[in-house]
Amino acid sequence: MDIRTNAYDPRTFKGRTFHDAAKAFAEGADDPVAYLERCLETVAEREPVVQAFAFLDEGLARAAAEASAKRWKDGKPLSAIDGMPVGIKDLLETKDMPTQLNCAAFEGHFPKNDNSAVWALRQAGAVIFGKTVTAELGGNHPGPTTNPFDPARTAGGSSSGSAAAVGAAMMPAAIGTQVGGSIIRPAAFCGNFALKPSQGGIHRGERQTTSMSTHGPHAACIEDMWQVAIEIATRSGGDPNCTGLMGPMTTPQPVRPERLIVLETEGWERTDDATKGAFEELLENLERAGVELLRRADHPWIENLEASIADATRVSGMITAWENRWYQRNIVDNHPDGVSARTQATLAKAEAMTPDDYRALVSMREVARVAHATLAPLADAIVTLSCPGPAPLWPGDKPGEPLAPRPTGDAVFNYPTSLMGAPVVTMPMMAVGGLPVGMQIIGQREEDARMTALARWISANIEPTVA
Amino acid sequence: MDIRTNAYDPRTFKGRTFHDAAKAFAEGADDPVAYLERCLETVAEREPVVQAFAFLDEGLARAAAEASAKRWKDGKPLSAIDGMPVGIKDLLETKDMPTQLNCAAFEGHFPKNDNSAVWALRQAGAVIFGKTVTAELGGNHPGPTTNPFDPARTAGGSSSGSAAAVGAAMMPAAIGTQVGGSIIRPAAFCGNFALKPSQGGIHRGERQTTSMSTHGPHAACIEDMWQVAIEIATRSGGDPNCTGLMGPMTTPQPVRPERLIVLETEGWERTDDATKGAFEELLENLERAGVELLRRADHPWIENLEASIADATRVSGMITAWENRWYQRNIVDNHPDGVSARTQATLAKAEAMTPDDYRALVSMREVARVAHATLAPLADAIVTLSCPGPAPLWPGDKPGEPLAPRPTGDAVFNYPTSLMGAPVVTMPMMAVGGLPVGMQIIGQREEDARMTALARWISANIEPTVA
Repeated sequence: MDIRTNAYDPRTFKGRTFHDAAKAFAEGADDPVAYLERCLETVAEREPVVQAFAFLDEGLARAAAEASAKRWKDGKPLSAIDGMPVGIKDLLETKDMPTQLNCAAFEGHFPKNDNSAVWALRQAGAVIFGKTVTAELGGNHPGPTTNPFDPARTAGGSSSGSAAAVGAAMMPAAIGTQVGGSIIRPAAFCGNFALKPSQGGIHRGERQTTSMSTHGPHAACIEDMWQVAIEIATRSGGDPNCTGLMGPMTTPQPVRPERLIVLETEGWERTDDATKGAFEELLENLERAGVELLRRADHPWIENLEASIADATRVSGMITAWENRWYQRNIVDNHPDGVSARTQATLAKAEAMTPDDYRALVSMREVARVAHATLAPLADAIVTLSCPGPAPLWPGDKPGEPLAPRPTGDAVFNYPTSLMGAPVVTMPMMAVGGLPVGMQIIGQREEDARMTALARWISANIEPTVA
Repeated sequence: MDIRTNAYDPRTFKGRTFHDAAKAFAEGADDPVAYLERCLETVAEREPVVQAFAFLDEGLARAAAEASAKRWKDGKPLSAIDGMPVGIKDLLETKDMPTQLNCAAFEGHFPKNDNSAVWALRQAGAVIFGKTVTAELGGNHPGPTTNPFDPARTAGGSSSGSAAAVGAAMMPAAIGTQVGGSIIRPAAFCGNFALKPSQGGIHRGERQTTSMSTHGPHAACIEDMWQVAIEIATRSGGDPNCTGLMGPMTTPQPVRPERLIVLETEGWERTDDATKGAFEELLENLERAGVELLRRADHPWIENLEASIADATRVSGMITAWENRWYQRNIVDNHPDGVSARTQATLAKAEAMTPDDYRALVSMREVARVAHATLAPLADAIVTLSCPGPAPLWPGDKPGEPLAPRPTGDAVFNYPTSLMGAPVVTMPMMAVGGLPVGMQIIGQREEDARMTALARWISANIEPTVA
């Protein structure tokens, strides 16, 4: 395995995939025990530097893999992901592993429950492959995880460990969660495919505190990404009051887009020139393949949407801060030293808000949702960068200096879709300076399967770009 | 205090009120410590039979009352409910008291957090006056609480203790929660005023599992009911993604309705003749006061709504069962003997459902919501009975016999409003056989303040009826 720093190339990189191995399980040429051992070999090789795991009990994983191997041998796998090692972001409860949220206040926290997605994965026969590092409480205070393509850089956050573990080929898939940009950004920094489902697409179990959070899979290929998502949603359903993710029980067939809308968002002016160049070249590749592109100057509805999300970073951040404030206040009251200064600063901002401030933000969000829904007949989907450049360097906070504002990178391209509640698929379609950069495709609510179909076509037919 | 059995008369009954006492606090003629001691005297007198409390630490209550008395003395009360003793349904977490959900699996459970409503009440200076008995996990397996007007009868459920404590004048107000009929039904059985807010009106804190649950206040008068609700909502806000309860910071002025819609629902044919008679007489009193009444035969839109809620008991029950199944499965897995056979039977029904079954139920709910919204211009509000008769006798389950289906009474008149997400105020307007029966007034979403204004006029101007 090539683990040279800054040597990522999306045209040749291949992570660890599962759907092809599962074919070999059925034929008896491979089995989940051997698959897991190969993952563990990579863990032994990469984990000391990548630090993607918050918890790993190899014995638990081996026992699950052995049970799966028996099912495959008996011709009775529970699902297409039976035997798949899947890492679980350490925000989600697991009945046989601690759940510590990368927060001192939760040190040793060991609820004996399974989050509903974990429960669904077990029902599907997946191997729960340890807990992956999250930024503290799913916010922006980073854990120890490093970028698998350059250890001096962040893996992104808050699903740092899930993205890095998949990027380092330690596992084929892992569960992340996003409330601002916590799935798509780290996935884009680590060369993953990932799905942030429509709001409510996958039941969040005990993680119901905020109105914009979603669970979603990171994977090394789009087939595994979809399969994990649909196997979970088929069993857990969506959130209360939501339709929940629907679609075919195997990856949707590739669909060529006719027309795509290219959004700038607040992010474009924060994007470095090399990344802009790589993205523009990618768009040219799309046009060469016959895809028509529309931009903000091409239609007033697009300009309307751009205007409605021009302040998305602030609106999204303050909505989430307000929604977390009661929960975080309880934590801080009980553990005054158990939460980082970064998280405490966010809490202080939230506690300066009133219910009317929140209502004003939610009505701004509604405007963005209407502007987005209006676009439905204009094109097949929206595309943007998934991140404003490759993962930034992260040397750590310096004692005595102000806290770095975005240690896990900038979610500027992700806040708009969190506001819209829209489904997003990110694809590893670019390299900038030998590091991954993602492109995301964004649909209307409940169009998760259609976005996967479009992403599958794009990733199979459009040449990635390297800058 | 008259505690004869079956001697309730809504024309003369007066529970323990607070808003009048607070005036005396401001004048120095009374104070929260003395007020609490009067509550504790009633507790000593009534609690041995009523059994409304799951937990009561008099020392904690006295300390809070003393702090409040000092604020009043200094002329600096935190709110209009500073010093009000408020009972908390034992589903909601309280940082200084256990939270045991009347479920063996939660015996000794003592999370050190405050539910957001509890947190808001403390900020407003209220005295958290112990935990009140809930039916197990907020379902229908009863606790020990008896009806304050006849100990052979249920107090209703699942907010059994909150309703009974207010009905027995042990406290002026208590917090209940409703997902099917768990606020309005027990309030109606116990002679309370109560508000079930619009869905999402009061932030539910850790109680986010289901899509139709709400927190709401039980009180002995409409002024205290409103004041508790608005003081909480002003501080906690509504649920994520919701507007949250809004309205004046003192009880809305009485408003006379011009026109009211009278709904039958599934409940009418399950209602006994005496209760029907008391309700019809109440409607005649309304008509005599100049209020026009519309019924299902008077307008096709009303018939549409009646048709859309004809199966509300089943639809509402199965939606909630499905939404609880993952949560309850974890409990049962960890505590196989820790949950009643009643709750296990509901879980088994839920586990036989699929996501598509849930989607079908939610779309039936949407039809009811549209039918209800359509009615908005037709009348000021809807009225129905709050319960299909007085609280039933509850002799307890008999070993070896099938479980009684509705030990805490029949929520048939409450499921429709839970489906609609509509605000409801119940008023103690009838007595049947010397026991309370409530009438409810039902608004469009977010019309909580207007329903309170209408209920205030009705309860002040319409003669209650006695059958």
